[in-house]
Amino acid sequence: MRRVTFGGANSLDNYLARKDNAVDWLLWSDDVAAVMADYWKTIDTVVMGRKTYEDALRRDGMGGGYPGVKTYVCSRTLKASTDANVTIVSEDAAEFVRKLKQGDGKDICVMGGGDLARSLFEADLIDELGFNIHPVLLGSGIPLFHPMSRQIDLELVECRTLKFGCVLVTYRVKHTRLSGDAPSASKKLRMKTGKVKKQTARK
Amino acid sequence: MRRVTFGGANSLDNYLARKDNAVDWLLWSDDVAAVMADYWKTIDTVVMGRKTYEDALRRDGMGGGYPGVKTYVCSRTLKASTDANVTIVSEDAAEFVRKLKQGDGKDICVMGGGDLARSLFEADLIDELGFNIHPVLLGSGIPLFHPMSRQIDLELVECRTLKFGCVLVTYRVKHTRLSGDAPSASKKLRMKTGKVKKQTARK
Repeated sequence: MRRVTFGGANSLDNYLARKDNAVDWLLWSDDVAAVMADYWKTIDTVVMGRKTYEDALRRDGMGGGYPGVKTYVCSRTLKASTDANVTIVSEDAAEFVRKLKQGDGKDICVMGGGDLARSLFEADLIDELGFNIHPVLLGSGIPLFHPMSRQIDLELVECRTLKFGCVLVTYRVKHTRLSGDAPSASKKLRMKTGKVKKQTARK
Repeated sequence: MRRVTFGGANSLDNYLARKDNAVDWLLWSDDVAAVMADYWKTIDTVVMGRKTYEDALRRDGMGGGYPGVKTYVCSRTLKASTDANVTIVSEDAAEFVRKLKQGDGKDICVMGGGDLARSLFEADLIDELGFNIHPVLLGSGIPLFHPMSRQIDLELVECRTLKFGCVLVTYRVKHTRLSGDAPSASKKLRMKTGKVKKQTARK
């Protein structure tokens, strides 16, 4: 079954961006470029919410229409996109992602803020988390996590420092039986590939 | 000058405790015991807010009256404590901590939730942060950080994994000139002792 991952760069106080969506505080490095390049090889599908999509449109005009990647935007209000790579999904986001996971393809990236992620977490559809924790308290901004109706237990897969004091952490979600995803089989599969890597400290 | 540190155990979604103050999700280990034992050697003073104090009283009857440690509780409403080790501070918390820093003694621990920490961050009085990030999204609870009026830049000092998938991170605050704390001298001193340690991954 295709894995669903949620993540991105965040501040230590768990903001994804400033209130005006600015990400001027992000620290780009060769380390980050390598992590991102490896990650993009594992996915062929991006799912995002309306706010993330509209912000992407404003930012780069792409609206998430990344080459070679199919983008789905979950929104009950947006009209169909003119970009062939972008599909507006008006049905229930959790139901849609549940069906996506059962289809063929590479892994699926949940991109952007916590509104969409919350509904997918609550439906137990997210399998992995990955964050690049930046050495800053922004003080305010767009939150990475929204309050949820239940606890999500995680298993640390990797933790290492990147340049400029960034910390990369990845986690595997310990699934409940809510999702009907045969978690024991899924866990068995992932145990073969998941690892806690040796870390290298760098400044 | 005495350093002021803020930290503790937190969930990945940055809660210190559940809404009812429960910390049943904390993972105790020899690793954590060693980190705590080393830390307590560096401090002789604890500063906390009223809510943290009242929760400590309910929890263990100690109210933060730890042996060998002087405890100050910042509150405009509490009456004097009968515990000789506990002093209620009714003056402005930032002014009080500013004076404490300039006195003699070991380092100072800011304990508990983010209400007090916010005012000390905004006054640029906190020097170091240390967190034991637990592999869990609690979904709701008492937040570690409250929104602040300004950004706080940090420098990563240490990052390593502890047992059970916990991640220990410590940071040094990059001081502004707001606090009048001669940050360049302070930074020079800390550069001798601060380090980014080699990390050891453990499960």
